[in-house]
Amino acid sequence: MLYPTPIAKLIDSFSKLPGIGTKTATRLAFYTIGMSDEDVNDFAKNLLAAKRELTYCSVCGNLTDEDPCAICSDETRDKSVLLVVEESKDVTAMEKIQEYRGLYYVLHGLISPMNGVGPDDINLKSLINRLRDDQVEEVIIATNATADGEATSMYISRILKPAGIKVTRLARGLAVGSDIEYADEVTLLRAIENRTEL
Amino acid sequence: MLYPTPIAKLIDSFSKLPGIGTKTATRLAFYTIGMSDEDVNDFAKNLLAAKRELTYCSVCGNLTDEDPCAICSDETRDKSVLLVVEESKDVTAMEKIQEYRGLYYVLHGLISPMNGVGPDDINLKSLINRLRDDQVEEVIIATNATADGEATSMYISRILKPAGIKVTRLARGLAVGSDIEYADEVTLLRAIENRTEL
Repeated sequence: MLYPTPIAKLIDSFSKLPGIGTKTATRLAFYTIGMSDEDVNDFAKNLLAAKRELTYCSVCGNLTDEDPCAICSDETRDKSVLLVVEESKDVTAMEKIQEYRGLYYVLHGLISPMNGVGPDDINLKSLINRLRDDQVEEVIIATNATADGEATSMYISRILKPAGIKVTRLARGLAVGSDIEYADEVTLLRAIENRTEL
Repeated sequence: MLYPTPIAKLIDSFSKLPGIGTKTATRLAFYTIGMSDEDVNDFAKNLLAAKRELTYCSVCGNLTDEDPCAICSDETRDKSVLLVVEESKDVTAMEKIQEYRGLYYVLHGLISPMNGVGPDDINLKSLINRLRDDQVEEVIIATNATADGEATSMYISRILKPAGIKVTRLARGLAVGSDIEYADEVTLLRAIENRTEL
């Protein structure tokens, strides 16, 4: 016997989470046992509720507990701009700046030729359908500044441009607060290319 | 709105675990939503079961789902030796080596003068009561090799020795597989003092 069954099972559950090995899982399981009854009950309840109540918005693909999501059903938002992101977490990141007032579209993945992920493997089809009969005038592509993000960005812009939709993407340049000394060459190159007048 | 309520609550629950900040909690919460229904149900069930079914053994203080625990109620174990550890996890560490066949005693803490933790604040009283009418001949102190561990070890040995009980503690020396070059001075000193004949 190593651990009593209840804790062994809990360790096993924690181990299934990403980045959590057996040692950390053991520490978390033992910590959980020391937590208040209320906190543990809430934890279990929240796990089940999140799994049960969350769904993807049928309009934008964002994670939501009501369909359509709060953003899509918000009448005050600008329906002429659509910001395309990889995942729901990116929507939250954009919402945090409290500046963007348009709508979103979540791809749930990026085109990744290296990993065999093509345009049909991500949530792209309904984007094209949506643009066909919608009042969208500009699509802002906000995929990560990685190879896959660029590939996806290129693909989307090539499909949308012939349809007469303005396609833009987030600016590339120096991150605010960063040192030029530590910036990589490609970032510096983009920062020079896209320099702005003062 | 940042996250839908169900996921915000789940993030909050994950954040209560040690070493998990908001960013990691968010990652774990999103990952959980992508897990199978079965895994999430099991996770919630295991949380509640661990909290509900686990208790401390009334004999040795070890974490258990039956009282007395599997080790205390195992008739084949040597009742003349008692190994004193700080916490339940240490019992598991010792059991893993599959060599020790005596019983355990879990202190649930260490005497720590620096943090104001005295002998009355840890599970010491019942150890002394137990030794009074038990058949224990040797007490092996297996507290951590830290200042608090040493303080606790000294305290216990001073109480037990006058009662005619043999008190030993785990050997200090080089960890197996370690380099002398990187060993600290105190460890090297102990290693020389406690050298063994070949």
